[in-house]
Order: sequence, then C-alpha cells, then structure tokens
Amino acid sequence: MIVRGPKTASAGGDERRIVCPMRLYDYAGSANAYKVRLLLRQLDVRYELVPIDIFRGEGQTPDFLKKNPLGQVPVLELDDGRCIAQSNAILWHLARGTSFLPADPFAESKALEWLFFEQYEVEPTLGSARYWLLTGRASPRKDELARRLEAGRRALRVMDRALEDRTFFVGGRYSIADIALYAYTHIAGDAGVDLASHQNLAAWFARVEAQPGFEPGPAPYGAAAHVPPA
Amino acid sequence: MIVRGPKTASAGGDERRIVCPMRLYDYAGSANAYKVRLLLRQLDVRYELVPIDIFRGEGQTPDFLKKNPLGQVPVLELDDGRCIAQSNAILWHLARGTSFLPADPFAESKALEWLFFEQYEVEPTLGSARYWLLTGRASPRKDELARRLEAGRRALRVMDRALEDRTFFVGGRYSIADIALYAYTHIAGDAGVDLASHQNLAAWFARVEAQPGFEPGPAPYGAAAHVPPA
Repeated sequence: MIVRGPKTASAGGDERRIVCPMRLYDYAGSANAYKVRLLLRQLDVRYELVPIDIFRGEGQTPDFLKKNPLGQVPVLELDDGRCIAQSNAILWHLARGTSFLPADPFAESKALEWLFFEQYEVEPTLGSARYWLLTGRASPRKDELARRLEAGRRALRVMDRALEDRTFFVGGRYSIADIALYAYTHIAGDAGVDLASHQNLAAWFARVEAQPGFEPGPAPYGAAAHVPPA
Repeated sequence: MIVRGPKTASAGGDERRIVCPMRLYDYAGSANAYKVRLLLRQLDVRYELVPIDIFRGEGQTPDFLKKNPLGQVPVLELDDGRCIAQSNAILWHLARGTSFLPADPFAESKALEWLFFEQYEVEPTLGSARYWLLTGRASPRKDELARRLEAGRRALRVMDRALEDRTFFVGGRYSIADIALYAYTHIAGDAGVDLASHQNLAAWFARVEAQPGFEPGPAPYGAAAHVPPA
C-alpha cells in the first residue's frame, strides 16, 4: 500500500520510471510502529506501507530477517534498500534536520535521554503489561507483571512531574520525544494504570493530539496475537 | 575525585578561579556507568568523579533526584549544572563531533539503532541476569531469569552474525556503539552464558580491548549490593 500516492519521477524525461519510495514494514497493533507512521504523516512523507503480521511468523522469513535479524517491526527501508530498525532510531533518522528534533546540542541530547527512557522505562513496562493482559499472556507472569506495572507507574510519575513546567518534553516544542513517549503512555489505561490522576500528562496528551497531522493509534491487536487461555 | 587533575582558568587573569569541570555521578559496579568512564578516558576529558552508592540509598536523596528523577547512575553534570541521564544519551552527548560517532547520517542512525538494541536486548537481559545472579536476587525470579537469558543469547547471536563482515559495529571504526555493546556483553559469562562459541564476538572483544585508552571495567558489585539469601 502506497501512503500518500506513488511518486512519479520526471527527471530525465523518463516519465514511466517510478521512484521507489521509502518502505515501512509495519504491524498496525504495534505502538512502536505507530510512532513511525505518525511522524511520517506529520512530515508529509510519501512511503510504501508493508504490513508484516508478526504473529503469523511474517517477521521470521529469511527475507525479513535480512532487514532486521530480530524479526521485529518497525523497519524503515530506504529507497536504496538499506534498512534501519528500532523505532526510536527510525524516528531520529526521519526527524534529522526538521523541527521534530531540536537543533541545540544539549536539547538534542535531552531528546535522546527521553527516547532511551521510553525504551527502558515505558515500553517494556506499560507496553509489555498491556500486551500480556490484552492477548492472554499475563497469567504465567503474575509477579513479573506486578514489577513491570510498578516500574511503569514510576515512569508516569516522572513524566508527569517533568511536565509541571513545560508544554512538551524538550526545547519548548513538539518533537520526536513527545511522539515516542505518547505511543505507549496514552493507552496505558488498558493495563489497569490510573492515568486520570496525572493531570499534567492528561493535558500533554491533549496537546499532542492537537498537533497538525495527528492521527490516532495503534490499532487493536489482530486475532493472531491472542493466545488461547491456559 | 578529579580525574586527570583540576583545570585552572587563566582567562581574564584571575588565576585563583577554578573552572568547574564536568561531573560524572558514578557507581563503580555499573556497566552503564563504565561505558561513560571509558569514553571520557578515551576522549582524554578531565572530569570530577562523584561516587554514588545506589545500594545505600545515595541515589534517592532529594539533591540527586533533582539530577535524575529515576535515582540512577550514570548522570553527567555539565559545568553549568545541567544534567544528562541515560548512559547511551551521555555517550552521544560526549561523542558528538568526535571520531567516536560517525559523521555520515545513515551510519549515525545505525549507531543509534545499536544503542537502542543494547538498552532493550542486552542490558535488561544479560545485564539484569548477571546482576540478579551475582547479588542474590535470582531465586524469586526463576522463570523471568530464563526468559531474559534466552533473549540475551539471541542478542549475542545477532551481534556475532553482524560481526561476520565487519570489524566494528558501525562505519568501519570503533565508536560509541562498540563501547555500549561491549559493556554488558564481555561480562555475560558471569550469567552463565557461553561466550566462547561466538568467535566473531571474541575477536571483537579483543579489538575493543586493544583501543588506545582502553581500561577494563566494571568493578565487582560492592558489599551493599548483595541481598541476604531468602
């Protein structure tokens, strides 16, 4: 599926030639992949969306493992075939030189600090807990689930406090730090976490959702994601 | 402790004024902190080392929580008092504009991809497993330990395969991607993982250890890190 329509090259007068756009290997239910879809939309970049049903083994084919040996989405394939994995590295690659990444070196480093915070303190805690609970994977991991939720609640408190004196996480404006942090936190209620008590977070969710080009996500997990009850 | 000696300012003729160097808040047993110590040494940067015994609550003081609300080390404090947390964000901040970070945009994004890989696939797997096993925290987490070790072994296989056709992870030269990936992998044997079967990894360990300014680390965990047997 080409998102925003195919791009026809007119350079050189050969109008039949189609320039191969960037490809995003995607799973609609992944909030990591949603981050990249959201940024591509807000950057108004044309790309080909390639759905990979990771729960039907489509991430484990020899072809896909060449793009990402971990078999995970998202993967961004550039028009020359080179690939980048890890959602926040993809955000960085796409945002470089745009208003979505602060130009000031210290602010850039702080954006990166929040991106690492997100992948360590948010995604494996609130994101994994939600995934386990919504897809039938929670019961063999009760203790670990409790630990992850505790760490996730701490992450929300840290974020809420950081938003006491700012509208966005870095540099006074919406950036990829906000996109990354929004992805798993705004749906953390699905993991039984109380979001309403964090007023700064709630106001920031609304600010993120009011950004030009915002689109909601991720989609619900597909049927193949669910495991039968033990 | 000032590492590499105090820096005396002579600008303006006021020779009594001491320029406050960067400070690194550090725990000697942390491999995340070791990454930063190693890079600072290899960059030949003068800094003040401030030991924080996170196992004696020194990360939870109001003063320290202002520097990092998570109470974790490492934290880099710049000479103007601003702080950066998250080991790999600190590496990035220090390496910007140096040979330790590739200048080519694609290579820079790949370096970032490996840094996120490290914080998601290596540190919480091999690093946490080692920490639990060495400090008496493994027994209440048997199932989770097995899952983490399985994910850690997969990370080592991915790294070993990536090294089939390259000497360092990105851009053909030693970079912060190597520093970050080295920190927890070279000591993964402490978690019972077989490193010897990964020949490319073993050769890469030797190349990292042969770099100018290399120093070994991290230190063993201190006495306060250990919990009594249940």
